[in-house]
Amino acid sequence: MRDVEPDEMSKRLWVQERILEVLRRYGFRLMDPTPIENLKTLEAKSGPSIRKEIYWFKDKAGRSLGLRFDLTVGLTRLVANRFDLPEPIKLCAIGGQWRYDEPQFARYRYFYQWDAEIYGSADPAADGEVIAVAIDILENVGLRDFDVRISNRRLIQQFLATIGIKRQEKLEAIFRVVDKIRKVSDAQFLKELKSTGLKGEAIEAVKRFASQSGPPRKVLGSLGNTLGLDVSDWVGVKELARLADVLEGLDKLERCVYDLSIVRGIGYYDGIVFEAYDRLGEDIGSIFGGGRYDKLCGLYGKRDMPATGVAGGIERLIISLERAGLLPASPPPVKVFVAYAGELDVRERLEIVSRLRANGISADYDSKDRGLGKQLEYADANKIPYVVIVGPQEISKKVVKLRNMRDRNERELSFDEVLSILRT
Amino acid sequence: MRDVEPDEMSKRLWVQERILEVLRRYGFRLMDPTPIENLKTLEAKSGPSIRKEIYWFKDKAGRSLGLRFDLTVGLTRLVANRFDLPEPIKLCAIGGQWRYDEPQFARYRYFYQWDAEIYGSADPAADGEVIAVAIDILENVGLRDFDVRISNRRLIQQFLATIGIKRQEKLEAIFRVVDKIRKVSDAQFLKELKSTGLKGEAIEAVKRFASQSGPPRKVLGSLGNTLGLDVSDWVGVKELARLADVLEGLDKLERCVYDLSIVRGIGYYDGIVFEAYDRLGEDIGSIFGGGRYDKLCGLYGKRDMPATGVAGGIERLIISLERAGLLPASPPPVKVFVAYAGELDVRERLEIVSRLRANGISADYDSKDRGLGKQLEYADANKIPYVVIVGPQEISKKVVKLRNMRDRNERELSFDEVLSILRT
Repeated sequence: MRDVEPDEMSKRLWVQERILEVLRRYGFRLMDPTPIENLKTLEAKSGPSIRKEIYWFKDKAGRSLGLRFDLTVGLTRLVANRFDLPEPIKLCAIGGQWRYDEPQFARYRYFYQWDAEIYGSADPAADGEVIAVAIDILENVGLRDFDVRISNRRLIQQFLATIGIKRQEKLEAIFRVVDKIRKVSDAQFLKELKSTGLKGEAIEAVKRFASQSGPPRKVLGSLGNTLGLDVSDWVGVKELARLADVLEGLDKLERCVYDLSIVRGIGYYDGIVFEAYDRLGEDIGSIFGGGRYDKLCGLYGKRDMPATGVAGGIERLIISLERAGLLPASPPPVKVFVAYAGELDVRERLEIVSRLRANGISADYDSKDRGLGKQLEYADANKIPYVVIVGPQEISKKVVKLRNMRDRNERELSFDEVLSILRT
Repeated sequence: MRDVEPDEMSKRLWVQERILEVLRRYGFRLMDPTPIENLKTLEAKSGPSIRKEIYWFKDKAGRSLGLRFDLTVGLTRLVANRFDLPEPIKLCAIGGQWRYDEPQFARYRYFYQWDAEIYGSADPAADGEVIAVAIDILENVGLRDFDVRISNRRLIQQFLATIGIKRQEKLEAIFRVVDKIRKVSDAQFLKELKSTGLKGEAIEAVKRFASQSGPPRKVLGSLGNTLGLDVSDWVGVKELARLADVLEGLDKLERCVYDLSIVRGIGYYDGIVFEAYDRLGEDIGSIFGGGRYDKLCGLYGKRDMPATGVAGGIERLIISLERAGLLPASPPPVKVFVAYAGELDVRERLEIVSRLRANGISADYDSKDRGLGKQLEYADANKIPYVVIVGPQEISKKVVKLRNMRDRNERELSFDEVLSILRT
C-alpha cells in the first residue's frame, strides 16, 4: 500500500481543483459513494470473477463486503434506488479506489479517479456531454496533445451480424481481438481473428471495419462504401451521426476521431464507447474512457434507466502532465520562517508569527527552540523563501530583519514593510 | 455504509477548503496515508482489542490488514521510518476512516477527519502550535462559541503519586472516572472514585484536583494552595506554564481553559492533552481533541521521537455549524439552463451552452431533448436561477430570452448582455 506524500499530494490537489472546476461548469453534482460496498453489488456489474481483482472480506456480522473498484458502481446503485431526482441526473465523484492488481507502472492498488455520469437520457446528447466534459478537464489542466477515439458497440454488433456473428461469446471473443488492433502487428491481429473461428473473407471484413479511423463525418460518410453495405439505417450509425452534431455544437468535434476498433474490453458497455490517449505515450493506458451502459441501473434497482459516463485516473494524468512539463513546481510549505537570535521571550517571538498568519501569510517557527544557526538550516532544508530574524535589539528598535533566502540579502524593515513584501 | 450525497458533499468541500487554508498558513504539509494498514500497525497503537472496533481482514496473500481508524497511525508510521525529513516535521491529512461502531448520532462507520501532527519537538511550543491551528480552523469556518480545555497527563500522574497511586491499572481506572466529572452527578462521581479503591481523604483530594478549571494562569497560580503542596517544581506544571506563554504569543490564550479533569480516555497520550467543545451542545462529543504521544514513533520505527497532534471530525463540525446557522446554503448545480423552443438544430442550441461555459459560467441543457415545458420544469426542480430560451426567431434576430426563475421576469438580450448579467 502506498502513502501519498506531500509533493505528490500537492500535485493531486492542483489537478483535482481544476477537474472540479470543469465538472461544476457542466452542472455535475459531486458526491462520495461509500468506499465499502456489498460484494454482490460489485459482482452485479462485473461478474463473480471480479472477486479475484478486488479487496473483499466478511464483516463481523458475516456479510460479504468489498472495497470499491470504481466510482460508477456506487453512483449507479444510488441512482437506481432513488425516485426523487429530476432526470437527467448528472453526478460526479473524485476519490480513491482499490484493485488487487500486481502493482506496475502507472497502476497502483490504491488509486484516485475522477468520474462523471449522466442517468436518464438515451440521447447521444448525453454521450456528447460526458465526452465534452472530459476533453475540457484535460484542457483545463493544460494537456493539449491527446486523441479522443470514439465508436459504438451497436455499430460493430450490427456489422458482425451481417457476417453471421450474433452469439454473445463469439462477439466478446472478437471484441477482445479488435480492441488490440492498435497494439499488435498486422500478422498477429489476423492470427488472433482466425483463432476466434473467423474465416477468409470474414477476417478481411472485420479488419476493414476495425481499421476505419479518422474525422467523424468522414468515417461515417465512407463506411457504406468501405463495407459494401447500406448502413444509412443502422442505429449505431445514426447515433454516431447525432453525436457528431452534438460534439460540433459543444465545440469539441475537432478533438475527436471515430475509430471503429474501440470497444472498451468486454465490460458492460452497450452503446457509444470512447477512450483518450496521450500522444506522448500510450504506455500509461487511456487517460480517460467511458461509454453507455443502459442495463446497469436495472441490475441494481427496480427500473431500467439509460446511462452514460466517463472516468479518468488522477495518477496517470499527473504522469502525463509531468512528461509534458505542465505541472507547476511544488510550493514551499510556508512563505516565511520567523527565527530569533539572543535572549527573547517566547511571547515576543510568537507574536510576530501570529500577526503574519492573521494577515493571511503562511508562517512557521522552530518549535524545537534551537539556536539561530539550526533555525536557518531548517528554513533552508524546507526551501522557505524568506526568514524574518528578530532579537532583543530589533524588538527595542521596533524593526525586524528580513532575509531573502535565495540571494541571502538582509534588510531591516518595519513589520508593515515586511507584510507588503510578503504579500506580493 | 453511507453515501455522501451532493448537498452534504458541498458542505464538506466548503469546510475542507477552509481547514486546508489554515493548515497551509501554519506550514503543515498535506499527505494521504494509505487507507489500508497492516493490522499489527493498527494494534501497536491501540492494543489487540482494537480488532473489535475496526474493519480488518486477510488479503489473498494471507496478510492481516485493517482499514485506518484514524490518520495519526499512518502519519506516525511514515515519519518513524524516514530519516530524511528535517525536524520538526509538520504533517496534516484530511480523509475518510472507518470504525466498526454501532452507528449513532454524529458517529458513523465511515467518517471524515482533519488531522495535524508535529514530530520531533518535546517543547510545549509544539503543543501550543497544534492547539492554535485547531482554534484557527474553528474560527475560519465561523464557529465562535466553543471552549478549549487543556490539561497534562504528567500533572495528574504526579499528583496521584503524592497520594500513593503509581500502578498503571490503578491510574487508568482513576483516569476513566476523572474523565467523567463533567458528565455525571457529584454523587455518581464520588461513588465511581470509591469503586476504584480510593478512600476518604484521597477521594476528596482527587475531586479537588479534577475540579480545577479556569483561566490558565489562575489555575496554575492557585494549584499549590488548593492541593496543599509545593507544585512549583512539577514537570506537568512547568510545561503548562510554558504552554500558557506560547498560547499568549500566538494570541490564543483567551480561548483556552486549563481543566484538570481532561485526560482523553486511556489511549496512548503521555503529556499535554486537550479537547474542544461546542457550547451549543456537547452531545456531539468533542469537536477537536489531541495531545502529546512521545512513545508511538518508537513502536513503529527505529527511534523514539516526541510527537503531538490534533484531530477533529468533519461531520461533527458540520453539525455544529448547522446548529449555529453558519453554513451557507448549498449552491444550485449551475447558474443557467439553456432551453430551446421550436425546431432548432442541436448545434445552434449547444453552441450557446458551449460559449457560456467557455466564459466560465456554469451552464446545463436537457440531454433528454424534451419540449420547452419539461425543460423549464427540470430547471425549476434543480433550482437553477436563470434560463436562457432560444428558438428559430431568436437565432434570426441574434438575441436570446433570459428568464429570471425567481421573479419569472423575461427579457430579450444580446449574448454579451446575458454574459454580463450572469457574471455578477
